[in-house]
Amino acid sequence: MNLEKELRHIPNFPRPGVDFIDITTLLKNKDAFREAIDQTADMVRDLSYDLIIGAESRGFILGAPLAYATGHGFAPVRKQGKLPGKTIQAKYQLEYGEDILEIHVDAIQPGMRILVVDDLLATGGTARANCQLVEKLGGVVAGVVFFIELIGLKGREKLNGYPVYSLLKIEEKPV
Amino acid sequence: MNLEKELRHIPNFPRPGVDFIDITTLLKNKDAFREAIDQTADMVRDLSYDLIIGAESRGFILGAPLAYATGHGFAPVRKQGKLPGKTIQAKYQLEYGEDILEIHVDAIQPGMRILVVDDLLATGGTARANCQLVEKLGGVVAGVVFFIELIGLKGREKLNGYPVYSLLKIEEKPV
Repeated sequence: MNLEKELRHIPNFPRPGVDFIDITTLLKNKDAFREAIDQTADMVRDLSYDLIIGAESRGFILGAPLAYATGHGFAPVRKQGKLPGKTIQAKYQLEYGEDILEIHVDAIQPGMRILVVDDLLATGGTARANCQLVEKLGGVVAGVVFFIELIGLKGREKLNGYPVYSLLKIEEKPV
Repeated sequence: MNLEKELRHIPNFPRPGVDFIDITTLLKNKDAFREAIDQTADMVRDLSYDLIIGAESRGFILGAPLAYATGHGFAPVRKQGKLPGKTIQAKYQLEYGEDILEIHVDAIQPGMRILVVDDLLATGGTARANCQLVEKLGGVVAGVVFFIELIGLKGREKLNGYPVYSLLKIEEKPV
């Protein structure tokens, strides 16, 4: 199955000039959804890791099934104030200003190997914040895996030193 | 495995007087996470449905792996303005004021049977909004499934007429 054909491009969302890649058309198709998770699991088959983490919200939609499919636990990374237990924080840059991501301090024990999952690698800011959370807790980033990589934005360069995996490599279309 | 023992109670979150039930301790345990999904799949084994929907954000963490495990597609229900395509809306009451949930209009075709998934049945407002979205698009609510039901809050009564399933039935503890 050509998974890229199951995606939908929505021009000018969330703002003019952006070609938004919508994964919901893939998610609602049971065969495409299953194959996306299975192919992602296959892509990281040789990696050794103890836990998968993913950031609110689309990181949950791919990270949690990937954890189920590969027999791992899942730890959610959330926006500030959403997790009920003791947390640590990492900041990341938005186009204007910055945002904060948190993880429970007891999600990761020192030395644990962590697979970071997200739907999309664009500029790499969110993924880098996820990696910082792992390392602040003494964990090791075993790999960073994306469903889609927008190759024109060179986000991979922001994740220098981490093993980066992406299932679909897409050129951003001009709107 | 006693899944209820894998949960953590956090008193006075997100505000004084609330006993918050934290599922992250279960999610990070690979055996507990797998068993939670498998038991939930087993609970709805005899239901006939075409698609699973779940609301941002914790509905994603359980709904997406359940869709994967049962061989269904998944459609995300999101807060206002997050979905890129054409949407319809349903409002639901918060303790103070109201909030809006959206789903893509092309997520559900008339006559489709939908399983609504969420982590927690408290007062039932979110679940009822999810059911309204299904019916506005001509779908049929095949069932509403929760990982946890707080039985003291009688949320089930707000979902009168829909088949309701919950894996863990918990009495709220006084804080």
